[in-house]
Amino acid sequence: MEKLNQTLEKIQGLNQQAMEEARNRIDHLIKPQKSLGKLEDIAVQLSGITGKLHPKLDSKAIIVMAADNGVCEEGISAAPQAVTKLMTGYIANGVSGVCALAAQARAQVITVDIGVAGDLEDSKILHKKIRHGTGNIAKGPAMSREEAIKAIEVGIEIAEQEIKNGRNLLGTGEMGIGNTTPSTAILAVMSGTDPEEITGVGANLPKQQLDNKIAVIHRAIEINKPDKNDGIDVLAKIGGLDIAGMAGVMLAGAANRVPVVVDGYISTAAAIIAVAIEPKVRDYLICSHASEEKGAAKASAFMSFEPMLNLDMRLGEGTGAALAFNIIEAAAFMSEKMITFQEAGIGVV
Amino acid sequence: MEKLNQTLEKIQGLNQQAMEEARNRIDHLIKPQKSLGKLEDIAVQLSGITGKLHPKLDSKAIIVMAADNGVCEEGISAAPQAVTKLMTGYIANGVSGVCALAAQARAQVITVDIGVAGDLEDSKILHKKIRHGTGNIAKGPAMSREEAIKAIEVGIEIAEQEIKNGRNLLGTGEMGIGNTTPSTAILAVMSGTDPEEITGVGANLPKQQLDNKIAVIHRAIEINKPDKNDGIDVLAKIGGLDIAGMAGVMLAGAANRVPVVVDGYISTAAAIIAVAIEPKVRDYLICSHASEEKGAAKASAFMSFEPMLNLDMRLGEGTGAALAFNIIEAAAFMSEKMITFQEAGIGVV
Repeated sequence: MEKLNQTLEKIQGLNQQAMEEARNRIDHLIKPQKSLGKLEDIAVQLSGITGKLHPKLDSKAIIVMAADNGVCEEGISAAPQAVTKLMTGYIANGVSGVCALAAQARAQVITVDIGVAGDLEDSKILHKKIRHGTGNIAKGPAMSREEAIKAIEVGIEIAEQEIKNGRNLLGTGEMGIGNTTPSTAILAVMSGTDPEEITGVGANLPKQQLDNKIAVIHRAIEINKPDKNDGIDVLAKIGGLDIAGMAGVMLAGAANRVPVVVDGYISTAAAIIAVAIEPKVRDYLICSHASEEKGAAKASAFMSFEPMLNLDMRLGEGTGAALAFNIIEAAAFMSEKMITFQEAGIGVV
Repeated sequence: MEKLNQTLEKIQGLNQQAMEEARNRIDHLIKPQKSLGKLEDIAVQLSGITGKLHPKLDSKAIIVMAADNGVCEEGISAAPQAVTKLMTGYIANGVSGVCALAAQARAQVITVDIGVAGDLEDSKILHKKIRHGTGNIAKGPAMSREEAIKAIEVGIEIAEQEIKNGRNLLGTGEMGIGNTTPSTAILAVMSGTDPEEITGVGANLPKQQLDNKIAVIHRAIEINKPDKNDGIDVLAKIGGLDIAGMAGVMLAGAANRVPVVVDGYISTAAAIIAVAIEPKVRDYLICSHASEEKGAAKASAFMSFEPMLNLDMRLGEGTGAALAFNIIEAAAFMSEKMITFQEAGIGVV
């Protein structure tokens, strides 16, 4: 709790002066005003986050939180729970989806066991297990409030270690069979949406099992009665350990003025929790892609995220964040490497 | 004409066997099937284009065609025509928008004077001027049929030289004050759309001048009577030299089995011409971003393009293509660096 409180105390708003300076420069670059659209907004945000006109984004990492979900026993997922452990090993060993895309983006992947059900021995994994998967949210809370806080603090600690090592752009990712179910439960509660409107097939759940998944989410909310005014309560009762860890990464990014890229649906659920805990965190987050998962559009809209990538992806792991790293770096390059009309010695076009 | 005919003769369909092999591998990578969405489709297309399961995309170039448009004398653009020459110099010297984004994407920018009105001396520019800007399309044809063919052949030659030098991913870009006007005229004729529905403000044309721009496009079509069944006729009568050059790059990409990335609105107009000349070219093109320009959505839909980037950009120069290079490279990384379930020694999830 102490770590979390210290982190929350450090979180300040964006640097308005740096943002004005950045916007002023971008408005005078040799191009029609506003013609680079959201790329310009990202560059301004980067300045607001870092306080620098030309922030360096030369050391990138995606922190992948792996955890299991007790709710899998309700048949809400096509893949068996054991896949979480298997895939976590593959992510740590560089052969999964996020590894391929991170390699292209020159980003490192940090794999964290924050709550996988089985035991993982691999030395390439950071072993930070809070418990062997969450409880079944259809029958009771996912975890205790203390466990939720500890899981958030794991995310904070790992992100802070990365930042201490020089990382200047972080991404969130996850691996956890069944995790669209707690994500949808969080979105339903926080946005006041009927689960039926936002429950999707996740990783290829057969359509005939969708009604069961919706019923499970309804039950999880009814039984646990999460308090939507208390982000940690929602997280502990109907969330997941991966979601908690990612929320911690976002809080640490905000506290240390490092931008954090939100991946897809599960990451957005973590962002909803992080922002519920501290609303200022929102300004430190950059949304990546529009996930194909049914509730994703609602989740993005709820967070006022405007996804930059439209690739019908729904893999998670941080794959969308890896792709977005390139675009965010390009925004910084734009501001730094283009010249202004004044530098060019001509009037504004 | 000989160069163009030789190029057209070389253009074949995609390699179906390579595409099947790629699709089969991607379907068995350690992820839920289809969960990387359009990234998977791009990887399959790359195999179809190159005939290789794992095409290398390690040498990228954006070919920027610079040319002036005689129709500027009708007041269809906010910036004066002289800006084309100025900006062409800045692009060649690495300080414009596409230069910044290409640097991030590790791509080279090739600047071509294919029809700038003034004289450019810079040795960093490829001097391939067909004529000093087009004629005013509101009063007569943009250029003769022979000039249109010569301009296409300039694009073919430059692209083929780059391919000979080892380029395996090409992008199209342009610089030409006023070029949304011929682009919109082309789109109107080829898609049978009223110019009023698709005419936008380009590079910040004041809204009160939009009616004049629409009237100019109407007049250009009425006076020139382009034959929509003859792409070269449309290009010569109501097109532009930059558009012709980019169409040539696309034809050369298809003839030499190298993917070509379409940038924004003007590039899409060039794609419409290239595909009108040879429909098989369509399969060698990869669309990048959804331009903010009013007619862009219609142009993309007409080409069955599904833009991967949603950044409200409308700069041109090849800026969208530069950003897309990263995503396309990531698609190739996915297919090559991820392992299959079989390679992992487990059953399909």
